[in-house]
Amino acid sequence: MSSKKVVELFYDVVSPYSWLGFEVLCRYRNVWNIELKLRPAFLGGVMQGSGNKPPGLVPNKFQYMTKDLPLLSQYFEIPLKFPSDPFEAIFKKGSLSAMRFLTAVQEREKGGDKQLEQVSRELWRRIWSEDKDITEPSSLSEAAKKAGLSDSDVKELLQLSSSKEIKNKLKSTTQDALDFGAFGFPLCVCHVDGGPQMFFGSDRFELMANCIGEKWLGPQPEKSAAKL
Amino acid sequence: MSSKKVVELFYDVVSPYSWLGFEVLCRYRNVWNIELKLRPAFLGGVMQGSGNKPPGLVPNKFQYMTKDLPLLSQYFEIPLKFPSDPFEAIFKKGSLSAMRFLTAVQEREKGGDKQLEQVSRELWRRIWSEDKDITEPSSLSEAAKKAGLSDSDVKELLQLSSSKEIKNKLKSTTQDALDFGAFGFPLCVCHVDGGPQMFFGSDRFELMANCIGEKWLGPQPEKSAAKL
Repeated sequence: MSSKKVVELFYDVVSPYSWLGFEVLCRYRNVWNIELKLRPAFLGGVMQGSGNKPPGLVPNKFQYMTKDLPLLSQYFEIPLKFPSDPFEAIFKKGSLSAMRFLTAVQEREKGGDKQLEQVSRELWRRIWSEDKDITEPSSLSEAAKKAGLSDSDVKELLQLSSSKEIKNKLKSTTQDALDFGAFGFPLCVCHVDGGPQMFFGSDRFELMANCIGEKWLGPQPEKSAAKL
Repeated sequence: MSSKKVVELFYDVVSPYSWLGFEVLCRYRNVWNIELKLRPAFLGGVMQGSGNKPPGLVPNKFQYMTKDLPLLSQYFEIPLKFPSDPFEAIFKKGSLSAMRFLTAVQEREKGGDKQLEQVSRELWRRIWSEDKDITEPSSLSEAAKKAGLSDSDVKELLQLSSSKEIKNKLKSTTQDALDFGAFGFPLCVCHVDGGPQMFFGSDRFELMANCIGEKWLGPQPEKSAAKL
C-alpha cells in the first residue's frame, strides 16, 4: 500500500469551485491509486496571506461565474446553485465558524475521514445548493446530523470548535496551504517523485492524472469505466 | 454554409493562455463546423476597464504560472517558454504597439485572416518562446516577414499602425470584449441559439464543445481523429 501517491486537497466550503474539486477527487479515490488527504482550511486567510482578491469582487468576473458555475455543475453532476444573496453569504457571513467546525470533526475522527467528508458535503449543500446559512451553531448542527453524527457528537464538536487548539489547527492548515503557494482554493498537492506538484482550481484534472501516472476518465469515472 | 456557428476569439499576444486558446481554436477550425473570428484586442484596456489585476502581480499566482504554463505547453504541444525577464516583457514593455500592428494587418487583409493568424503566431513565438522583443518596429517587421509578408506590406502596415483609424479600431474591439464581460484573455464568445455564451481561459473547451454541439477530442484533434 505504500505505493499509493498522496494527494492533498486544501478546500473551504465557501468556495464553489472547491466543491467540484472535492467531489471529483472523492470519486477518483476509488479509481486512482491515491491516498486522498482532506485539508479543510480558511480561504479568507489564504486571500489575505497571498495578497489575492476574491474573484467575485471584480464585477465582470462575478457575472462570468454566474454563467460558468451552472455549466460546470451540469458537467460535473453536482447540484450547485448560487445563494440568493451571494455577497451576504460569501463575503459578509463567510466560513470561519464552518471551517473551525470541520477542523474539529477532523481532529476528533479516528481511523479515516468519512465524517469529515460527509459533513463537508452537507455544508456545501447548504450554502451552495439550498441557500441556507452555515454560520450559526444550529446550522452546523443540522449539517452534522444529516451526515450521521449524534446529538452528543455535535455538542462536543461545537465546544471543541471554539477551543484555542482548533483555532490554531485551522490557522496552521491555512499556513500549510500558503506555504505550498496557495492564492485561492481548491489547491491540490500531488506528492510525486521530484517533489510536490500543485494544481489550482477544478480544471487541471487531466494534467493531474498525467502527473500521478493515472488516466482522466471525465468527471464521472465510475460511469466511464462501466462503458469501457 | 450559413449553419456554421460563429466563435469569436478575443486575444492579446502578451497573454500566454491566449496563445493556447488561439492554437486550439485554429486546429478545431478544420474539425468543428464553426466560423472562427479572430479579434485582436488590448489586454491592458480590458484589465483597466474591468477593474481586474493581472494574475502575475500576486506573487503566489506568478509562481504557480511558472509551473502551470510548462505543463500546459506540453499538453497542448505549444512551445511556450517564459521570457527571461517576465515583468519587463509583460508589464513594462507590454503589447500596445503589437496589437495595433495586428489590428492593421486585419484591417488591410482581404478575403480571410490567414495573415492575421500567422503574424499573431509569430509575435507569440517571439515573446513567449524565443525571449524576443515585440515592441520595436524592427521586431514587428521581422515577425511579419516570417509570416510571409513583403517589405512593402510591412512598411505600409507600420504606417497604418499609428493612424487614428487603427488606434480607434483597437479601442473599439477592446470595448467589444468588455461589453461581452471580459476581465482577461482569452475570451471565446460562441454565438448559439439563446445568445452569446462566453468562455474565459483555455480550460473550458469541453464545455464549449457541448455548447456548440460538437465533440472535444483533446488538444490535438487531427491526431485523435486519425486514431479513431
